[in-house]
Amino acid sequence: MTTNVSPLPDSAKRVFKGEIFEIWQWPQQMYDGSTHTFERVKRPNTVQVIAVIGDQILVQEQQQPDRSRPYFSFPGGRCDAEEQPLKSAQRELLEETGLTSSDWELWSERRPVTKMEWIIYTYIARNCVKEKEPRLDAGEKITNRLINFNEFLRLPDDPDFYDSWMAIMLVKAQHNPAAADKLRRQLFQKV
Amino acid sequence: MTTNVSPLPDSAKRVFKGEIFEIWQWPQQMYDGSTHTFERVKRPNTVQVIAVIGDQILVQEQQQPDRSRPYFSFPGGRCDAEEQPLKSAQRELLEETGLTSSDWELWSERRPVTKMEWIIYTYIARNCVKEKEPRLDAGEKITNRLINFNEFLRLPDDPDFYDSWMAIMLVKAQHNPAAADKLRRQLFQKV
Repeated sequence: MTTNVSPLPDSAKRVFKGEIFEIWQWPQQMYDGSTHTFERVKRPNTVQVIAVIGDQILVQEQQQPDRSRPYFSFPGGRCDAEEQPLKSAQRELLEETGLTSSDWELWSERRPVTKMEWIIYTYIARNCVKEKEPRLDAGEKITNRLINFNEFLRLPDDPDFYDSWMAIMLVKAQHNPAAADKLRRQLFQKV
Repeated sequence: MTTNVSPLPDSAKRVFKGEIFEIWQWPQQMYDGSTHTFERVKRPNTVQVIAVIGDQILVQEQQQPDRSRPYFSFPGGRCDAEEQPLKSAQRELLEETGLTSSDWELWSERRPVTKMEWIIYTYIARNCVKEKEPRLDAGEKITNRLINFNEFLRLPDDPDFYDSWMAIMLVKAQHNPAAADKLRRQLFQKV
């Protein structure tokens, strides 16, 4: 949820580049005048899509090779280099579900870890329609499933639900009818 | 919140070691039989302490050299190598607040980022007493403040509140008197 982190300073240098992660370092002046080497991880930004079909929402039951049991998620993935996040969201939705939409809204843009250069963009894609069959990567085992609005609000009851920002929104909406109405309008109606 | 991640496999090798972060890689067999290089970040585990004094809870208004504005947090920091998390929690509480307690409980142990070997341990320290004056690091500007239980429940109303797991707990307790009572007992009474 942290959003008040300064950008990487101009003096920061990349000291490692791996498959996904990079390490950046810079000399940081401390409050007592001394200087320490500060360090951050950089990784590709990611997108996720709340795809709305009629009065239902698409969730994915997903397995990955290095995780011990399936978990719920939303369509999405990494932004390619230089790719605008909306384009990434549209590409991932089409690849993983075969769906398209002409009504997109950026719901949230957040940085989950202070010491990590990594932004998660969450989009709502309203009135989705099927364009083709999904095409999955070798590392993906995904079952797409439709749930209704009340089931959506209950996703954080699963202790493995991974999106803390959304969990807070959904728990608030579980308990606050005005917040639930607002969220329902945002998902199912044009704004 | 993710807890269902497999441990680093035996074949994982450290390919970079920085000031805080390490990068580990291993060959991962995919569902189609192909092999890809998988990667994770490793960093020291961290502790945080909910310190209870009488019927109040200690929060810190904190500034750090690479953050643009102050934020609320709890006493805590990194576990030193081989240090047990309870020892780290007791050490950090004493350094940052001068407080000690003889009544500790591990409230939560969680892994916030799937691709990161990093556990956050959250402790409750009940009936804290002042032992000495705080001693701060060069990178820390911290003001200790006491808040009451209702103010504690309202911490997630601040969009910069950084602990998503706790935010979900506190939002539930804001709306659910039974959850609030349970939390109040856990913080203020011996169990």
